[in-house]
Amino acid sequence: MEDKPRIRVGLVGAGFMGRCHANAFRSVAGIFDLPAEIELEILADADEKLAAENASELGFRRSTGDWRKLASDLEVDVVAIAAPNSLHEPIATDAIANGKSVYCEKPLAVDGEAAKRMMDAAELAGATTLVGFNFLSNPLMTLAREMVQDGDIGDVTCFRGRHAEDYMASGDSPHTFRTDPAGGGALADLGSHIIAMARYLVGPIIEVGGNLRTIHETRPESQGSSRLVPVEVDDVAYSHVVFENGAAGVIEANWAASGKTMDLSFEITGSAGSIVFTQERMNELRVWRRKPSRRQNGFTIIESGPDHPPYGRFCPAPGHQLGFNDLKVIEVSRLIHGIVEGRAAFPDFREAYRIQLTVDAIRRSSTERRWIRVFE
Amino acid sequence: MEDKPRIRVGLVGAGFMGRCHANAFRSVAGIFDLPAEIELEILADADEKLAAENASELGFRRSTGDWRKLASDLEVDVVAIAAPNSLHEPIATDAIANGKSVYCEKPLAVDGEAAKRMMDAAELAGATTLVGFNFLSNPLMTLAREMVQDGDIGDVTCFRGRHAEDYMASGDSPHTFRTDPAGGGALADLGSHIIAMARYLVGPIIEVGGNLRTIHETRPESQGSSRLVPVEVDDVAYSHVVFENGAAGVIEANWAASGKTMDLSFEITGSAGSIVFTQERMNELRVWRRKPSRRQNGFTIIESGPDHPPYGRFCPAPGHQLGFNDLKVIEVSRLIHGIVEGRAAFPDFREAYRIQLTVDAIRRSSTERRWIRVFE
Amino acid sequence: MEDKPRIRVGLVGAGFMGRCHANAFRSVAGIFDLPAEIELEILADADEKLAAENASELGFRRSTGDWRKLASDLEVDVVAIAAPNSLHEPIATDAIANGKSVYCEKPLAVDGEAAKRMMDAAELAGATTLVGFNFLSNPLMTLAREMVQDGDIGDVTCFRGRHAEDYMASGDSPHTFRTDPAGGGALADLGSHIIAMARYLVGPIIEVGGNLRTIHETRPESQGSSRLVPVEVDDVAYSHVVFENGAAGVIEANWAASGKTMDLSFEITGSAGSIVFTQERMNELRVWRRKPSRRQNGFTIIESGPDHPPYGRFCPAPGHQLGFNDLKVIEVSRLIHGIVEGRAAFPDFREAYRIQLTVDAIRRSSTERRWIRVFE
Amino acid sequence: MEDKPRIRVGLVGAGFMGRCHANAFRSVAGIFDLPAEIELEILADADEKLAAENASELGFRRSTGDWRKLASDLEVDVVAIAAPNSLHEPIATDAIANGKSVYCEKPLAVDGEAAKRMMDAAELAGATTLVGFNFLSNPLMTLAREMVQDGDIGDVTCFRGRHAEDYMASGDSPHTFRTDPAGGGALADLGSHIIAMARYLVGPIIEVGGNLRTIHETRPESQGSSRLVPVEVDDVAYSHVVFENGAAGVIEANWAASGKTMDLSFEITGSAGSIVFTQERMNELRVWRRKPSRRQNGFTIIESGPDHPPYGRFCPAPGHQLGFNDLKVIEVSRLIHGIVEGRAAFPDFREAYRIQLTVDAIRRSSTERRWIRVFE
Repeated sequence: MEDKPRIRVGLVGAGFMGRCHANAFRSVAGIFDLPAEIELEILADADEKLAAENASELGFRRSTGDWRKLASDLEVDVVAIAAPNSLHEPIATDAIANGKSVYCEKPLAVDGEAAKRMMDAAELAGATTLVGFNFLSNPLMTLAREMVQDGDIGDVTCFRGRHAEDYMASGDSPHTFRTDPAGGGALADLGSHIIAMARYLVGPIIEVGGNLRTIHETRPESQGSSRLVPVEVDDVAYSHVVFENGAAGVIEANWAASGKTMDLSFEITGSAGSIVFTQERMNELRVWRRKPSRRQNGFTIIESGPDHPPYGRFCPAPGHQLGFNDLKVIEVSRLIHGIVEGRAAFPDFREAYRIQLTVDAIRRSSTERRWIRVFE
Repeated sequence: MEDKPRIRVGLVGAGFMGRCHANAFRSVAGIFDLPAEIELEILADADEKLAAENASELGFRRSTGDWRKLASDLEVDVVAIAAPNSLHEPIATDAIANGKSVYCEKPLAVDGEAAKRMMDAAELAGATTLVGFNFLSNPLMTLAREMVQDGDIGDVTCFRGRHAEDYMASGDSPHTFRTDPAGGGALADLGSHIIAMARYLVGPIIEVGGNLRTIHETRPESQGSSRLVPVEVDDVAYSHVVFENGAAGVIEANWAASGKTMDLSFEITGSAGSIVFTQERMNELRVWRRKPSRRQNGFTIIESGPDHPPYGRFCPAPGHQLGFNDLKVIEVSRLIHGIVEGRAAFPDFREAYRIQLTVDAIRRSSTERRWIRVFE
Repeated sequence: MEDKPRIRVGLVGAGFMGRCHANAFRSVAGIFDLPAEIELEILADADEKLAAENASELGFRRSTGDWRKLASDLEVDVVAIAAPNSLHEPIATDAIANGKSVYCEKPLAVDGEAAKRMMDAAELAGATTLVGFNFLSNPLMTLAREMVQDGDIGDVTCFRGRHAEDYMASGDSPHTFRTDPAGGGALADLGSHIIAMARYLVGPIIEVGGNLRTIHETRPESQGSSRLVPVEVDDVAYSHVVFENGAAGVIEANWAASGKTMDLSFEITGSAGSIVFTQERMNELRVWRRKPSRRQNGFTIIESGPDHPPYGRFCPAPGHQLGFNDLKVIEVSRLIHGIVEGRAAFPDFREAYRIQLTVDAIRRSSTERRWIRVFE
Repeated sequence: MEDKPRIRVGLVGAGFMGRCHANAFRSVAGIFDLPAEIELEILADADEKLAAENASELGFRRSTGDWRKLASDLEVDVVAIAAPNSLHEPIATDAIANGKSVYCEKPLAVDGEAAKRMMDAAELAGATTLVGFNFLSNPLMTLAREMVQDGDIGDVTCFRGRHAEDYMASGDSPHTFRTDPAGGGALADLGSHIIAMARYLVGPIIEVGGNLRTIHETRPESQGSSRLVPVEVDDVAYSHVVFENGAAGVIEANWAASGKTMDLSFEITGSAGSIVFTQERMNELRVWRRKPSRRQNGFTIIESGPDHPPYGRFCPAPGHQLGFNDLKVIEVSRLIHGIVEGRAAFPDFREAYRIQLTVDAIRRSSTERRWIRVFE
């Protein structure tokens, strides 16, 4: 054990997502046989008192009210960013300039230009980066991707994906950072997840035709406020998508989907089969493959289990089920491997940049009411 | 009983859909308390021998190889058309000219212009017409429509619908009437169903942005043929839709959706709830309504039962379940009422014409790669 | 067509189940290519006026208020019995004595002794008989049975079955013929269905250990009555079952299962797989088979379709779905074949007698609080 | 923070369940706001080398090859037992004698007598105890229990429960500790879970009528061995159950249920509603309540979320989903509260003893082929 390098974590953000990061860093060594020892070094939050309290509670040695101190701290190896979106760029670039690895929540940046600057900085510095598109860490996504790539469903022809929740379905839901015109909206918040998944499973999206809609033209300025403020972002976004490999389909981002809590879902159709998934039943993957007869054929419900690594690190048998927080632990384990092995993790800033470009293209396509090529 | 008028049926088409019509006409009086007595008068099929055989088997008094004779037969009150799409117009207009009511399979016509001619002829003559969008006859669709109209889910904001099957998923599936450039393709064949349903439940679609795709560029000329012929119609069609009431969404028509057999499905989202359905479980409707707490709230699965008329005409209790053929019987009962009461049935030629216009607009929108207003 | 024999139907009972029979006889020739022509000859009901009205509506030539006249009518070939349970024996034996075939609703009789007399009479006379255990006519039951017999799931080891509904869940549900001590109770009414299914799929039950429970000790004498009358029959019955082939399990009959509408369901477990079904989704069968790895294995949902005859007689493609009334049509088609071909149909009086013996054994086992062998 | 007492953990067992305990102890402080600080003090395993390795990996300060040293270690406050079942009694009683709290995996003991000795020792010493019936920690079980107790489903009338998996379905699955005649078998291993749940939700079981079955009469002595050894325990156990409150039903324990991975499931029926659950979808609870009409009524699928504490400690919103390991964290948090507050946790040794008595009664009932009262 003595031979293992230490990786000292500096975490920016003591809110919910910050706690989620901290817990994943705490848990990961108990689950995985990691190539490094993880130490929770320092926690930063603009609210210095909260930082101090949570640092103690979450097991960090130190705390600070100034993320800049954290980003340049000599005792920090990796900077984890669970701060407001608008801070992602300054924190990440500062951390990279100081030689740190960076683990950043999604979306990477408020727009493609910012994302490009972050990517360029990271690649120039050779920094290991990882962006928190948690849902890609599901072992069943690995299986789905493998099946697609192995041709198990033939050539991919169609993709139908969405991420639908309902936390903004009511017009009484107030403005938050999510409705900030700089980087906000359902497409950026939720659409980026389904775009990440589409890219992971089917490949690059090369052309889009979007339709962004604002359902509630005004929202309370803050929780319970009677002052209504105009909304400038989308509540729901639909888009045609065409993939590099010729497949086509539609995606949807919707935070006003009454009744839906986590319908990050897709149907990948191939010439010889299909794969269906929803995050609402994250331990199940439905697969169909054409056979000569339908007499004994149909969709098969594959349950997550030890045959889908790294499920077995968490539970000894199928049926036990992974939860959301386990996905974050898997994500962190990949980050640690990337750092120790001096290589890119996935999805890194480059991938997140491409996701952001796709988001931007859909938004522009909607505004201009025309098809847009993503990389033109 | 003697007071009831007779309605004598002339059916064109002795194939599967023809049998389906015949069976519905045979069964309907046993299920419903109809205002008329139905008599199976004459069956026409281009294959005169088949017509004769099936006439006997299905209980028709007479048969003919010439639909024109049927359409002008004095002993016929209603002409049912289960013939190839390209014959819908001549048969229907001839029948209408002869004073008959007309019951026509969908799609009404090969394009909007033909549909308009048929509609105009019917309305000029005051003919009762009904077009076979079977799935609207599901008692649960009546409930869904009522809930929407009563505001049970608030204002409708989003619609996500599709009709996906896989009978053309394989490139080995040959050309048939369905791939005929005149009126063929997944959008016309399946898309018309989901458009009909969207209109029935949410209202008119006023703007579309389509993307039609041909997956298999060639298909065998006929079953088993080694001669490959180019395909000119779509295998899958996606479209943005905007409704008159301001709701928006996407629809899809797909006959290459590997694994899907009858995914005529929708999710209607409102500001205060949502309604979810798939024809694959045609006896279930899922409904969600916002409540102050989620503690005991969630989607409710409503099962079709006697509380959803006319289910009780078929089965004495919930759980027994209606099947596809029962929908056809309900459709026929509505036709009979329309005829006897001298009023339009639903969906009539006018409604089918509007559906056709929507289909045409989506197709044009895809070709021209731009948004199209449906009634501009 | 002239060569086909005629089968003239006499139906006793103009209530709901009688209509159901009549409709099945009306429809069956349009669906199947039968070896006989069916004629609706005469309808009997104790309510002579109702008989006359319904005869006209349902297409019978004649009607009577006296089933005895029907049972001996020279123009009747098959007597269909949809009358109260206590009349099954006299009607059936009279009809058999007059050389008729008999189609009887379940349960065959009020107890095993009566069932035996009926069976003996039928077999002595060589009469074709069929008892209406409708649910066995589901094409997916044919598939399930075939899979069991072909060893697709290995040796059958366990059976878990039930028929649960909730029409008597409320103590306000009044006495009806179902609570008649002679032949009533949940076990007789619903348990007979799951016993029939268990026998059809797994084989004879040779030993039982039952527990019958009366939930509501009194019920209103009739709908809305304030007079409460003691209940002597079971609301729910559980029983251990051991099959001739060594498999074991439990069955349940429950008419107080709040929320359940048609949970006639089973799980057949074998050493190498399992088959799961519920009538609430009568067009789906779930099958699991052991494979070397679970990585791509799981339960497969088989949808009813043309690969499951005679589904294709009703619908051209999978996904359309059969309904309850279609099962009755299939049942009648089997009856007709039995009559014309002069052989037993299935399930005949002998099979129904054995089902009744199993019911009786479970009831006695519960009373005596001990295991009972079914045929001892 | 300085005021919080320390709770120092001694864990016996470095196998999978031991790791599961260790991870829960590591994670719990990050999730809950605990009244104590947890320290991983010492890890014991009969394999001393494994103990040392895992101690380091899992964050324990020390390790030992002798559980006796751990049980009497002055630096240990709570002894967690994840050792073979036959060691539960000696370890627990030794720990209790040394003034420790005890956290023991289920089943508590090999039989009721051993369980009684353990319970008596704990209660005499006033030790806080908790037995690892993990699944009771599901927030949805809290909701289900509350609904039952609040009368939301009326009087409970029926219970149908099971725990079915298939890890011993194949006859090639070898003997392990699970098939040890002392305390082994499906009933003890899995049945104890469904009995625990039944008691938690519906109350004490007072009478049983069991049927235990051994499907594979022999099994390989060990993995891959060709030497077959007789099996003395049950592969599947069914039992009638009657509850103190008058409800009745059946339970099943089955480790040969081909295809099932975690069907720990139940249906609680009341006079006015019902509650349905399966651990295979541990984030969903299905509830039905009688309403005047079924028109808009049906089973409601409640999804686990922040309205079901302590879900919100893990995830910020519904839909994210808890996993199996989260249940263990909740269990540990309850243990810590029990210890700090000097009171019993739930389920403690007394509850586990009663569960064991129920297991014993079912086994004896099967052997003697008669009904048995549980506490006679």
